[in-house]
Amino acid sequence: MSHIRDQVSSNIEKYIGDSNFIEGAMKYSALAESKMFRAALVFASGDLNNNISNKSLINLSTSIELMHTYSLIHDDLPSMDDDELRRGQDSSHVKFGEANAILVGDALQALSYEIISDDEDLSSDEKVVAIKLLASACGKNGMVYGQFLDIESESKSIDKQSIENIHALKTGKLIECSVMYGQIGNPEKNVKKVLKSYAKKIGLAFQIKDDILEVTSNKETLGKNTNSDQKNHKSTYANILGIDKAKEKTMSLSEDAIGNLETLCSNKVNMLIELAKYIAYREK
Amino acid sequence: MSHIRDQVSSNIEKYIGDSNFIEGAMKYSALAESKMFRAALVFASGDLNNNISNKSLINLSTSIELMHTYSLIHDDLPSMDDDELRRGQDSSHVKFGEANAILVGDALQALSYEIISDDEDLSSDEKVVAIKLLASACGKNGMVYGQFLDIESESKSIDKQSIENIHALKTGKLIECSVMYGQIGNPEKNVKKVLKSYAKKIGLAFQIKDDILEVTSNKETLGKNTNSDQKNHKSTYANILGIDKAKEKTMSLSEDAIGNLETLCSNKVNMLIELAKYIAYREK
Repeated sequence: MSHIRDQVSSNIEKYIGDSNFIEGAMKYSALAESKMFRAALVFASGDLNNNISNKSLINLSTSIELMHTYSLIHDDLPSMDDDELRRGQDSSHVKFGEANAILVGDALQALSYEIISDDEDLSSDEKVVAIKLLASACGKNGMVYGQFLDIESESKSIDKQSIENIHALKTGKLIECSVMYGQIGNPEKNVKKVLKSYAKKIGLAFQIKDDILEVTSNKETLGKNTNSDQKNHKSTYANILGIDKAKEKTMSLSEDAIGNLETLCSNKVNMLIELAKYIAYREK
Repeated sequence: MSHIRDQVSSNIEKYIGDSNFIEGAMKYSALAESKMFRAALVFASGDLNNNISNKSLINLSTSIELMHTYSLIHDDLPSMDDDELRRGQDSSHVKFGEANAILVGDALQALSYEIISDDEDLSSDEKVVAIKLLASACGKNGMVYGQFLDIESESKSIDKQSIENIHALKTGKLIECSVMYGQIGNPEKNVKKVLKSYAKKIGLAFQIKDDILEVTSNKETLGKNTNSDQKNHKSTYANILGIDKAKEKTMSLSEDAIGNLETLCSNKVNMLIELAKYIAYREK
């Protein structure tokens, strides 16, 4: 994973550049310490695809990580979740002011699409597929709508079904997109079908684990404030099911996701298995 | 122009849909009364291109208009220009709250790319060209950077050169992109070169005229508050040169832009000529 992180970080550095204030502020958030879990998923899925270059995997990962970074910057804004700590440092709006944080997010979103359109190895057909996947995962029927529902649910008691729906949109869609990004250009439809099912499960597991860590961990470990959901009066999986049941749920989702991989070429799914396990057992 | 506006409005309606709150809020801003000047530019430029369908011109125009709408919504936010009136109605954040206005803008940006990737007539090569043009016009070296510089210039006295640079980035890049969108797929490089020069001139003329109208017009006519630049202590072309000199400048830019068109097929540039004149003489 650290090799992937290094490659993606260098690519982020290269693509953002160093010529103006906004670029500096983009790098501040995009290069801050991060798990780069979504980039790892792109590469893990790419292990099952003979039709994609390492360079394209790096670019697709970069695009996803920048999209994710923009969403964190906007989610942290005072008018949204009002979180002042992110990735172990001041949130973008604390560091650069609210207007600049909004603009930095906006610029990161644009750059996500630009990087894909700029790739040297993907065909134009493949780029269009990738851009359509990303735009649809992140827009009005995906990530943005999930964030809207999440904010709207504040101070309300909502049921498990509604929480799952918010998670599927807010976090799940981009995680699914990451897994599908490793499959760009792969003609094997069966592999894609299996990975889609895998992605849905780990997406939900990832978010439930996030909810658990909000309660059981601390800000030094997570690099963000742990009282955010409570402060914003949000219903989470952890407080609806209780911590133990929520933990069981992440583990069973993780095992199910790994089970999905059984029909695939066994020596190429190691990283996907590791990532599914990591989600359930991670401490940050 | 009203025929173009009707076609683009129907397409906006179709693409945004009607299934959730965010979509409703997107339509509120995107379908509010607007000149749709950028859509008109796409079509006017398209008159000189035999290799693009009417359907693609509608989609490209829609994409540009949604991108423009997102930029207005974010620019109007309290932390940016803090404008409460836009297109003759409450700004998005006044109507739906700040968090939702940010999300609506974010979703509109994503949809701009999605619409292009979804077009049925453009080739994948052409779509990639279009997406790259748009992302680069709107990101960290284009529109977003222009808005950053614009906010940063508040309460400062800046020179004509700096104002022109802000205009070129904040408004000019998307106007240039609109003109180039009409040329997607056109192999005639000379036409593109001429139109690029035309676009740069009308882009600047458009923004200077905006600055003039801020001073000489009223909010009923413009559908937005007229004291915004003054309120935010912004240096504008109008107050650096004075109204009369600024008017002269827009007229000479408009004439120069029309002059650029002389070498092109004369019966196909009528709309481009009309738009250049419109910029100089418009009252709103």
